[in-house]
Amino acid sequence: MAVKRTARKGAYPSYWRLDRHYSNIEFRFTYDLPQEESIRIAAEGIFALYLDGKDNYRNNQSLITLPAGKHEISISLFNDTEVPALFIAGDHICTSSSWEVRSYQNDWVNAGSWTFNSASQPPSQFRLALTPQEPIRSELRDGFPLLDFGKETFGYLRFHGLSGLGKLCISYGESIAEALSPDECVLIDELDVTDMIAGAEEGSYTLKNAKAFRYVWIQADAEVHWQTVSMLYEYVPVTYRSSFQCSDPKINEIYEMSLYTLHLNTREFFLDGIKRDRWVWSGDAYQAFLMNYYSFFDLDVTRRTLVALRGKDPLTMHINTILDYSLYWFISLYDYYMYTGDLDFIRVNYNRAVSLMDFCLKQRNEEGLIVGRPQDWVFVDWADFSNEGAVSTEQILLSRGLEAMSQFAGLLGDDEASASYGKLAEEIIAATLHLFWDKDKGGLLHHRVDGENLPELTKHANMFAMSYDYLSAEQRDSVIRNVMLNPQVPQIRTPYMRFHELAVLCESGQHEYVRNEMLSYWGGMIDLGATTFWEEYDPTQTGDTHYGMYGMPYGKSLCHAWGASPIYLLGKYFLGVKPCEPGYAAFIVEPHLGGLEWLKGAVPIADGEVEVDMNEHRIRVRSTSGQGRLRYRTKGQPHEAVIPADGEWMEIRL
Amino acid sequence: MAVKRTARKGAYPSYWRLDRHYSNIEFRFTYDLPQEESIRIAAEGIFALYLDGKDNYRNNQSLITLPAGKHEISISLFNDTEVPALFIAGDHICTSSSWEVRSYQNDWVNAGSWTFNSASQPPSQFRLALTPQEPIRSELRDGFPLLDFGKETFGYLRFHGLSGLGKLCISYGESIAEALSPDECVLIDELDVTDMIAGAEEGSYTLKNAKAFRYVWIQADAEVHWQTVSMLYEYVPVTYRSSFQCSDPKINEIYEMSLYTLHLNTREFFLDGIKRDRWVWSGDAYQAFLMNYYSFFDLDVTRRTLVALRGKDPLTMHINTILDYSLYWFISLYDYYMYTGDLDFIRVNYNRAVSLMDFCLKQRNEEGLIVGRPQDWVFVDWADFSNEGAVSTEQILLSRGLEAMSQFAGLLGDDEASASYGKLAEEIIAATLHLFWDKDKGGLLHHRVDGENLPELTKHANMFAMSYDYLSAEQRDSVIRNVMLNPQVPQIRTPYMRFHELAVLCESGQHEYVRNEMLSYWGGMIDLGATTFWEEYDPTQTGDTHYGMYGMPYGKSLCHAWGASPIYLLGKYFLGVKPCEPGYAAFIVEPHLGGLEWLKGAVPIADGEVEVDMNEHRIRVRSTSGQGRLRYRTKGQPHEAVIPADGEWMEIRL
Repeated sequence: MAVKRTARKGAYPSYWRLDRHYSNIEFRFTYDLPQEESIRIAAEGIFALYLDGKDNYRNNQSLITLPAGKHEISISLFNDTEVPALFIAGDHICTSSSWEVRSYQNDWVNAGSWTFNSASQPPSQFRLALTPQEPIRSELRDGFPLLDFGKETFGYLRFHGLSGLGKLCISYGESIAEALSPDECVLIDELDVTDMIAGAEEGSYTLKNAKAFRYVWIQADAEVHWQTVSMLYEYVPVTYRSSFQCSDPKINEIYEMSLYTLHLNTREFFLDGIKRDRWVWSGDAYQAFLMNYYSFFDLDVTRRTLVALRGKDPLTMHINTILDYSLYWFISLYDYYMYTGDLDFIRVNYNRAVSLMDFCLKQRNEEGLIVGRPQDWVFVDWADFSNEGAVSTEQILLSRGLEAMSQFAGLLGDDEASASYGKLAEEIIAATLHLFWDKDKGGLLHHRVDGENLPELTKHANMFAMSYDYLSAEQRDSVIRNVMLNPQVPQIRTPYMRFHELAVLCESGQHEYVRNEMLSYWGGMIDLGATTFWEEYDPTQTGDTHYGMYGMPYGKSLCHAWGASPIYLLGKYFLGVKPCEPGYAAFIVEPHLGGLEWLKGAVPIADGEVEVDMNEHRIRVRSTSGQGRLRYRTKGQPHEAVIPADGEWMEIRL
Repeated sequence: MAVKRTARKGAYPSYWRLDRHYSNIEFRFTYDLPQEESIRIAAEGIFALYLDGKDNYRNNQSLITLPAGKHEISISLFNDTEVPALFIAGDHICTSSSWEVRSYQNDWVNAGSWTFNSASQPPSQFRLALTPQEPIRSELRDGFPLLDFGKETFGYLRFHGLSGLGKLCISYGESIAEALSPDECVLIDELDVTDMIAGAEEGSYTLKNAKAFRYVWIQADAEVHWQTVSMLYEYVPVTYRSSFQCSDPKINEIYEMSLYTLHLNTREFFLDGIKRDRWVWSGDAYQAFLMNYYSFFDLDVTRRTLVALRGKDPLTMHINTILDYSLYWFISLYDYYMYTGDLDFIRVNYNRAVSLMDFCLKQRNEEGLIVGRPQDWVFVDWADFSNEGAVSTEQILLSRGLEAMSQFAGLLGDDEASASYGKLAEEIIAATLHLFWDKDKGGLLHHRVDGENLPELTKHANMFAMSYDYLSAEQRDSVIRNVMLNPQVPQIRTPYMRFHELAVLCESGQHEYVRNEMLSYWGGMIDLGATTFWEEYDPTQTGDTHYGMYGMPYGKSLCHAWGASPIYLLGKYFLGVKPCEPGYAAFIVEPHLGGLEWLKGAVPIADGEVEVDMNEHRIRVRSTSGQGRLRYRTKGQPHEAVIPADGEWMEIRL
């Protein structure tokens, strides 16, 4: 996946070390059979089976009869191209996660197991789902066809009834302008028609590589002809488990478009964007995870993404080369546990979390603050500020990461480590508030170089400090007033950081402000013809300049996962559903109209769901699981009511 | 290579973690061209080229014209199945080790480069050389043909003129008895003749997997016929750069058989044995390296082996899972530098040496002695002793490893690390001599459990301490008398440890004793029909029981690299050629007849060679390089003479 990105005419693999599976492994399983049993072994890799430790007497036959009684099966398996995998479905002997596996590092663990439930469905053949899509429109531009698929999509272009001799040049565009610019579009294919015809099946040639586009412009040599062009849309068949509707159709449109934007980026892993980079970025994924909890609740893609981001030891560079992105990984794991209650996954990843934290903690300066090494990228956001020295945002993320580690260590029974992480988290946040808080400006300054604060004030550290509850009530008020709602403080241009900005404002009860911001910011993209949300949006730009980024006229991604944050904002702060205990064992429902006449919708809560239906006069709510509490206000007074987990609607008059 | 071993009907991959190449890398090269130049890029992997850091404007065309002037070429390359490789041979722009490469770990280093000098010869296609061999004899046993290839060999069996329908069962034997035991032979193939005929080329079917054997017994179904069976011998085309001849034809035969034994095990890496394990073991390789310096002087296979043994970080288990085998790696690197003077290779491997030493030093007990963890194998030798607690041999190997590290650190300019390693080496050897020396027994005891010595006395620690010069003159005498030549001390049964035992005896002037031991031990194997030397030899065994080991009747390897130590003993102690300075910049020639009437031979000294020709009356010697000194005795008095490096013979009368 990390090498699927292309830029113009070449591959653009990610610029970090890529780690692979362990190629050489061994499975073991102890059985006790009343009578002998024949099993058929399907393996991806070179395997050998032996019984009861007699490893000099190995067998590679796929059909084997196991003797009755109690015996230990050992199967060594080697595969250096695909993940080694084993499938047995005997009458009693079946592969499952109760088998153990090791990579010969003294590390017997339970084997991984997923939905590959037949020998004809090996893991290496895993592919996302496909479904045909047709262009909604075709017109000639400079004599060549420009096809419009109606909205942003992703998949494999197909040519039907292709004939003739010559070359085809396909320029892809998320915008018309991009498709019509073969010299500057990001994605382009040049194909030899003879090869295509040779590779056609039943008269149709499907391109080998999937791409993101809405438009394609096909420049063909004169002797090349075809009947039609379509595409195979490629996607994860997620369930849309959330919904949101309200009295403002524009908000409804924003919500639906957000779901589609997130869905397009929900793939083998959560991607940043489907045109570019098609990579797995930890900071982007941190938000996609949260959006996912308020929509598809697809934990498989979350787990895959967390595992892929972390990679293997030894660590020499940060996740994605970015200091903050290492820190987001801990917080993502923390959120995962809170939303799912899945301690097993935490357990499996704990050692890797410890070594990542060790790696991070080696980078603290004499004040105890984490700083980037020369080879590190300290990102924070696409914005015009310097990240030299110790950046306040990084300290807050580190502190939150340490809190997560403290929680994990405690849950896994290492009280000493838990206390140690907890103490360090407190020290770092205390130092951060002490060193970076500017009384005159009423917020946390951006960075500190050589032990001296620089005057720059940004929203970033302040909003994270609010989110993670590191501020006193007085500090919170000051931050809202002097930083978040202060037009003198530089505005945030990326949906990435608007996510946190608007979440914090919701947490401070600024729902109406947030609704208006959604309308102007996300609504602004829709007004410009967006069918999915963008990587960055600056309302002051005009025309095709909106599409430029990174010094390329079409460099901007127009379908970026972080653009989908209204899912999170509307689910968590308008429908108001929040877990209080891991896996939604207990949760709060605290809906806010935020100036809307009415709203209704659903949020998945682990295996169950909550539905909310609110207008100015009443709240209706139903839940299918967990200990839910409804929070609401009548005549300015807060109230709380227990929500039964029986799936029946309850109603509160306001 | 680590998964080529088979045992009976299944693969037997090595039981340690296998590490792979970095799949995702980037090359860079800065050129300055007077005019534009067209280059053709051959790559193993998905590549993209861009100029001057403009990575969004990538090109994957294999033919490209580079602009004149000074520019930086960057080529990103991804290959997760084979080692990513690049080949360019333009007029001025050519790939070489002056290009730099990184795996995105902040680690620009010079690219690796070897003898792949055309685009049609990619590294992934590297194969050893092949040459046909015919059986020398065929006879029927139980109605099925038993073929004898005359001596131990390795390669691919071939069937010519195969026809009919049915199955073939081929049982391979290093001995006749093994070939005739399809139920117990280690190597066996069962083949379907239809598949073989389908896979035949020009009427001949070559088996897919090479195997070690002298004999094959072919049991075929009645309807299966063929004309002849031959084999393709697979080998590294090394140059035999050494020679040895003397007045005893048996010693000459031992020397030649040793060379053949070593050659068979000199492959992609130095293997332990060609039938079993076909793995790369550090303790075995340590000796193969030394034998190689006295024969082929093939440094490529040494370097490949050292790199493969070390693998990647993080270390969780010792090299080959064996504590001593981690320690031998340092000493092998030390020898490599002494025999070759190649500091570049030390530099490239230094960081990995540091982390391996860090890993080892974490295993010291409260007395400062290195001990095995529960998951470690403390091997020392195949012998009837316990390695519980702190084993004296391991301390001596650790001390020698630390001396090596001290030398490397010094050579690479880190004086502080050099001093620290040196100090630790001294402390450990002092503690070892203090704690393990038994005055009554006159040697180092074998091990120490819970701070108390156990009474067992073995040759192992004592001979390593002598080899590495850790004993006083008095202690040396005591060790020779009370341990090495003491029949009460358990005899060594493996050629592995006989290597060190006999080397030490030579260093104490016991050449005549060593010659007799060679005749009885290696000569004993020849008398039993050996054509290559064995993994273990116990003269008290009889008949086919010689072939058993590891609880298998044919488990013993009859072609084991460590069986070839006469190469080393005769080259270093009889011809007497030893480097005194790295890369043979200076060396000693100190020949010994050891009871022979005459001897003569050659030893490679890096790029040059030394020839020696000695009888009781005179020594003749010639050398082509380095500062050589001849040491000899007349009438009991030691003398020294300078050997000119002009390749001319000089003669000394005795």
